[in-house]
Amino acid sequence: MTDRYCIIMCGGVGSRFWPSSRQAKPKQFIDFMGTGRSLLQMTFDRVLEVAPADNIIIVTNSDYAGIIHRQLPEVKPENILLEPARRNTAPCLAWAVHHIAAINPEASILVTPADHLIMREREFHKALRRGFDFVEANDALLTLGIEPSRPETGYGYIQVGKPVNEHICKVKTFTEKPDLELAKVFLASGDFKWNSGVFMWTAQSFLKALAENSPELARRFEAGEGKFGTELEADFIAREFPACPAISIDYALMEKASNVFVEAVDPGWSDLGTWSALRDNSPKNSLGNVTQGCQVVSYDTSGTVFSVDNPRKVVVVDGLKDYVVADTGDVLLICPLAHEQQIKQYVNDVKSKFNDSYL
Amino acid sequence: MTDRYCIIMCGGVGSRFWPSSRQAKPKQFIDFMGTGRSLLQMTFDRVLEVAPADNIIIVTNSDYAGIIHRQLPEVKPENILLEPARRNTAPCLAWAVHHIAAINPEASILVTPADHLIMREREFHKALRRGFDFVEANDALLTLGIEPSRPETGYGYIQVGKPVNEHICKVKTFTEKPDLELAKVFLASGDFKWNSGVFMWTAQSFLKALAENSPELARRFEAGEGKFGTELEADFIAREFPACPAISIDYALMEKASNVFVEAVDPGWSDLGTWSALRDNSPKNSLGNVTQGCQVVSYDTSGTVFSVDNPRKVVVVDGLKDYVVADTGDVLLICPLAHEQQIKQYVNDVKSKFNDSYL
Repeated sequence: MTDRYCIIMCGGVGSRFWPSSRQAKPKQFIDFMGTGRSLLQMTFDRVLEVAPADNIIIVTNSDYAGIIHRQLPEVKPENILLEPARRNTAPCLAWAVHHIAAINPEASILVTPADHLIMREREFHKALRRGFDFVEANDALLTLGIEPSRPETGYGYIQVGKPVNEHICKVKTFTEKPDLELAKVFLASGDFKWNSGVFMWTAQSFLKALAENSPELARRFEAGEGKFGTELEADFIAREFPACPAISIDYALMEKASNVFVEAVDPGWSDLGTWSALRDNSPKNSLGNVTQGCQVVSYDTSGTVFSVDNPRKVVVVDGLKDYVVADTGDVLLICPLAHEQQIKQYVNDVKSKFNDSYL
Repeated sequence: MTDRYCIIMCGGVGSRFWPSSRQAKPKQFIDFMGTGRSLLQMTFDRVLEVAPADNIIIVTNSDYAGIIHRQLPEVKPENILLEPARRNTAPCLAWAVHHIAAINPEASILVTPADHLIMREREFHKALRRGFDFVEANDALLTLGIEPSRPETGYGYIQVGKPVNEHICKVKTFTEKPDLELAKVFLASGDFKWNSGVFMWTAQSFLKALAENSPELARRFEAGEGKFGTELEADFIAREFPACPAISIDYALMEKASNVFVEAVDPGWSDLGTWSALRDNSPKNSLGNVTQGCQVVSYDTSGTVFSVDNPRKVVVVDGLKDYVVADTGDVLLICPLAHEQQIKQYVNDVKSKFNDSYL
């Protein structure tokens, strides 16, 4: 029996991929890469390499219990933690770590989002094994830092400090998303990594650090000691979880704690946060078009993503450059990729003009 | 009992409106204007003003018997002539006129396509009444000539000759579709009208002129004398019609006969031959967008036609100028209106890559 666990955070709504990603079926549940497995399923497959299935905990919104059961029937119901409200990542992880600690106080834990892409799994697995070894030997909070390949303005960055071994350094600072000029400086310096949102720690190190750095949040969950892992847990969470503030683990813990480390790695990672990122990480034809779930006949069209929920549908397109065409049967979106930041506004406009069924 | 009849030619395939117009449901059967009536139904309603329902004959391909019965249940089955093969307009009209002449040798006949648009019906009806009066008083083949409003290169033109009264002139020449330079000359001269494909004649004048100008075609149908209007007609047509050459009535008769006249009229006519023509003749929003059958939320989009077979569907579009977006459930077309002449090529490409079900 291993002490290694994994928490898959699976509660996101993925509104930037509307209409393909919907409230009822967000991004992590979609087979975006056309592999036959959703991003969640691929994440589950990936972490099975470092933690046994019984040690993998999925934290999600209660709306998604059914779809998770259908996509991952091998996961036991007691390993799916259903949040009664959306409260960002800090309450989510406080609960999940308490839950694991109640089952196994010696647990070391990998935390990963459900909806990221890893192209070089072998690199990733090696990094995870080194990371587990490190957090099991040290009172440390470890984050994976991705070697940046471009001056990306859509990610947070981590500035590395003093090395502790060949792969792991102390963290000097976490930074917010930079503007392009600053991102170029970060890239040129070699000292900055992308903040991947993948973390590793032992249950005990996490709970100690949370008590020191976010004592109010920590006390709220410490009040449940003795209930986690028992039939009393659900009632406790139903009462206490919605009362938590919605704050991120970066803000509640990582940016404040003194024992934060980063392991730099280059596993072909993308957070697939936008249609552009999806395009850049997908197989393309010679004109840079990406086709998902449909048949496309194109003329004078390049750099365009086609995401259509109907394998029989034929899309005939002429004269689009760097667009997204997403068709879900009840919604058709045609939008320049350069405007994809406005998709949230489109969704709001559709909601105000029509009804919630399109969200 | 009136001697005035109408032939509605309803056999076209409307491939320029693919994918909204399909082999199984061509343009004339579609409610393109969003009025709740298809172009065929609007044509039927329009000619009821000058001919009683029992005198309206619909000639179509046998594939469309069912859809015509559903769209026009008030038309008796014996008034629907089902062509066993597609042979262009000359054999179609030779048959239909023989059929009417067998029922009423004194018949005068209006011939109209099923898929044109008339915006000013009162003008049109006045012209038809004048036309009936003229062909009933003279041994004449009359065509309606539309006052041109622009140097259109998509239509044939009629050069008017000597006037016979205030509205009607002898025809000097029929011309093929001109290039833009020539179309400008035609427009400036004032002597040229658009060839509408709307004709009027008596049954006797037509049959006499056909015998003189296309004797081979005329003899083929004269062999059926005594059978038209009887139970022997169907067998005769099944055998003889497919053996006819596929030629137009312009070529077989109008360009050759010496007794051809034109009545100039300006009834807000369009042949709705292209998506652009449809856009130009449809109600538009302030940015020139036309929405048919769906709900559109648009940003930075103008001059674009949306034709979607799903009233619940929401189309969100950003950054299209002068496009057509046509969605039929199994086909999505996105194409600049400037390339609409290539739609036939797209259809061929889809046929060769996939199968006939998309045609």
